[in-house]
Amino acid sequence: MQHLLPHLEANKDKYLQELIDLLKIPSVSANPQFAADVRKAGEFTAAKLKEAGADKVELCETSGYPIVYGEKIIDPSLPTVLVYGHYDVQPADPIELWTSPPFEPVVKDGNIYARGSADDKGQFYMHVKAFELMMQHQALPCNVKFMIEGEEEVGSENLETFVKANTERLKCDVVLISDTAIIANDVPSITVGLRGLAYLQVEVTGPNRDLHSGIYGGAVANPINILCEMIASLHDKNRQITIPGFYDDVTDVSEAERNMMNSAPFDINDYKKHLDIAEVLGEKGYTTIERTSIRPTLDVNGIWGGYTGEGAKTVLPSKAFAKISMRLVPNQDNKKISKLFEAHFKSIAPPYVTVKVEDMHGGEAAVTPTDSIAYQAASKAMQTTFGKEPLPMRSGGSIPIVTMFERVLNTKSVLMGFGLDSDAIHSPNEHYGLYNFYKGIETIPYFFKYFAALSK
Amino acid sequence: MQHLLPHLEANKDKYLQELIDLLKIPSVSANPQFAADVRKAGEFTAAKLKEAGADKVELCETSGYPIVYGEKIIDPSLPTVLVYGHYDVQPADPIELWTSPPFEPVVKDGNIYARGSADDKGQFYMHVKAFELMMQHQALPCNVKFMIEGEEEVGSENLETFVKANTERLKCDVVLISDTAIIANDVPSITVGLRGLAYLQVEVTGPNRDLHSGIYGGAVANPINILCEMIASLHDKNRQITIPGFYDDVTDVSEAERNMMNSAPFDINDYKKHLDIAEVLGEKGYTTIERTSIRPTLDVNGIWGGYTGEGAKTVLPSKAFAKISMRLVPNQDNKKISKLFEAHFKSIAPPYVTVKVEDMHGGEAAVTPTDSIAYQAASKAMQTTFGKEPLPMRSGGSIPIVTMFERVLNTKSVLMGFGLDSDAIHSPNEHYGLYNFYKGIETIPYFFKYFAALSK
Repeated sequence: MQHLLPHLEANKDKYLQELIDLLKIPSVSANPQFAADVRKAGEFTAAKLKEAGADKVELCETSGYPIVYGEKIIDPSLPTVLVYGHYDVQPADPIELWTSPPFEPVVKDGNIYARGSADDKGQFYMHVKAFELMMQHQALPCNVKFMIEGEEEVGSENLETFVKANTERLKCDVVLISDTAIIANDVPSITVGLRGLAYLQVEVTGPNRDLHSGIYGGAVANPINILCEMIASLHDKNRQITIPGFYDDVTDVSEAERNMMNSAPFDINDYKKHLDIAEVLGEKGYTTIERTSIRPTLDVNGIWGGYTGEGAKTVLPSKAFAKISMRLVPNQDNKKISKLFEAHFKSIAPPYVTVKVEDMHGGEAAVTPTDSIAYQAASKAMQTTFGKEPLPMRSGGSIPIVTMFERVLNTKSVLMGFGLDSDAIHSPNEHYGLYNFYKGIETIPYFFKYFAALSK
Repeated sequence: MQHLLPHLEANKDKYLQELIDLLKIPSVSANPQFAADVRKAGEFTAAKLKEAGADKVELCETSGYPIVYGEKIIDPSLPTVLVYGHYDVQPADPIELWTSPPFEPVVKDGNIYARGSADDKGQFYMHVKAFELMMQHQALPCNVKFMIEGEEEVGSENLETFVKANTERLKCDVVLISDTAIIANDVPSITVGLRGLAYLQVEVTGPNRDLHSGIYGGAVANPINILCEMIASLHDKNRQITIPGFYDDVTDVSEAERNMMNSAPFDINDYKKHLDIAEVLGEKGYTTIERTSIRPTLDVNGIWGGYTGEGAKTVLPSKAFAKISMRLVPNQDNKKISKLFEAHFKSIAPPYVTVKVEDMHGGEAAVTPTDSIAYQAASKAMQTTFGKEPLPMRSGGSIPIVTMFERVLNTKSVLMGFGLDSDAIHSPNEHYGLYNFYKGIETIPYFFKYFAALSK
């Protein structure tokens, strides 16, 4: 694949400009006001796949946003790689903290700044361009299929239905996904474990209307105070989660694997300095690396209630709300955990309030084997382009669809991502390194090459 | 004053229409976007005072919104009543819970629905109309001065400066205020105690930017979780406030007064039913009436942080905020309490976060004597028009300016309000009974009459 390099070099500006065009589309799937833009990003993706040389390109309609499909079957006897990605992005809030507008991409200090630059437009687009390069230079060594969806950031609600209805069309030997990070640009890694997710919204109702805190305060339970007390009780003093049964299905990770994880380059002082925090906080008995990979956690992702505008309003509100998510580890069932959460949260509600719990979305944790042909192909590809063997890493994030692919398509995934944890995905000023973008386009053809070779 | 009644009867529709015109002006002092409207409400008030027959009407400029002044001195040897009120209103949020728009007044079931209808436009405007009636029919028995401000809902920030600079102009024998409630339309009452207020905003900062909860969750303290834990710790299991020194200056109320308070008509089941709550919650050892009048309390008036939009965003936010207020009882110094809160809140902040505390506004608690001429005049006035002697009541709300008038003008206030606790002031669907509006206009001239007579 060495012969593709000069062509990649010659086209860098063109590829970047195309990515910029894609990033300009505010395809925020969580917010219905961007519905037309989400669809537009799907159409853009389909057009680019067609241009790159894919056949049977189609915007497959679902009950939500369409799934972009395309394929190139060069020989049915050769192995097939299914590339998965998503063209939707997280909401840009809080917008006021962005130094440049989230949908007006800016290239600065070797990075491209825009919502979705790393998660996942910049990453799935590497595959489109790598495929185009292989097509243009007769270098595609096996079959390829693309499935780029528009609802990943809202729980991939319609993906499973689509996959189930299209098992024959999606048949493949590996699912290749670039939606994760490497440890550092000089420390390549491949994600072999992902945490699952259970995401719920809770609503605590006190009195049937907002009250004057002077007239009722002290006599009527304030749902904000009660919600705070309920949330506070979800962790014990060792920062373990207090939901009964929460840890029942957690499998312990071997000492050997823990030792390996903890031997990865990591400086706790750099970490704290980078985040401007004096201390880290997490489950007792585990390191920061372990807390973010092999242990389940619970975070409040949003909270609101009462008067949140300027100035002072002395209200005792009727309602308070929170969005609460739990990251889960392999063997924890996200649906079971959501039910445990709901039962527990309702059980701790005092009689002064009523509580509603809504299960918003979830996904199972996943671990991928390192002894598979696909992992070996990814490892060799990265070793070739980075000059170093990548480390197998467990990541704290969740890509719920990985377990679904395994269940429905009976196919393992390889998580060969090129981002960095510092890319600020889901945060203001999300960015993606140009180094990483081009390194991905360079590496992907090697994956195809080694996967085809090792499959023989 | 009996002879005014037919004239009041004849003008009811006119008075109501004028009040509606005033209520249409969205004079929300907390929100700068309504600045022009707040001023407009002041101008409206001044114009109506002039029409009613007041002299020296003036919009007195301050650093904030103007204070409307007007007077009628009929004889310097007669006593002088200073009427205080406010033309600004609370924000209307949450607007979606109003059944009719907050600034498009609607008369329904004997009430007028609009933000400010009870607090305090409907109440201060009774004084303007009662004064007009007395002027039109040569019935004014003593001197009157009006001071109607536009910043009560934001802590009366510029009132004290104005009062201090105008002690001669504002010289009076009593300050008469209608900004409180009676127990029921058939159980008149006069407020003799008001709680003080300390209102603060807190900001808890964890990491220096919003993070992905999958990558950092479980290892980096989440400021929402921490804020919830800090708020939860502000009450103990007896619902006492845990701030050291908080109760030091609270003076106990005598058994006799407690017995009297608890003998007022009050049905806890009606109260719960009216609010749709299964149980009340408050400080152990006190009744609901006591909890809302003679005991200090702490409420979160607003909380926000992280993602609060539609859908699910897995963010570990950088910051979380809350607005927290405490209602104080006589002898508690609101400035001291604000300092105690700040010191305590910072002291309980764990090392994973940094905390900012902003003192937003406050006011002292007040108790007015029942043996004064002014109280007796108010009591007799209400007895005349309601046919029942009003009960002296402690109220849970705060009117910080009462203690300021005492300190600066050396004058006691009488809190002869005509609202009801169920008026939903500071809440969606605020309303004021037409019965109460007209009853106030009917009663006020009697207060003037008895106050002049008893002062002789």
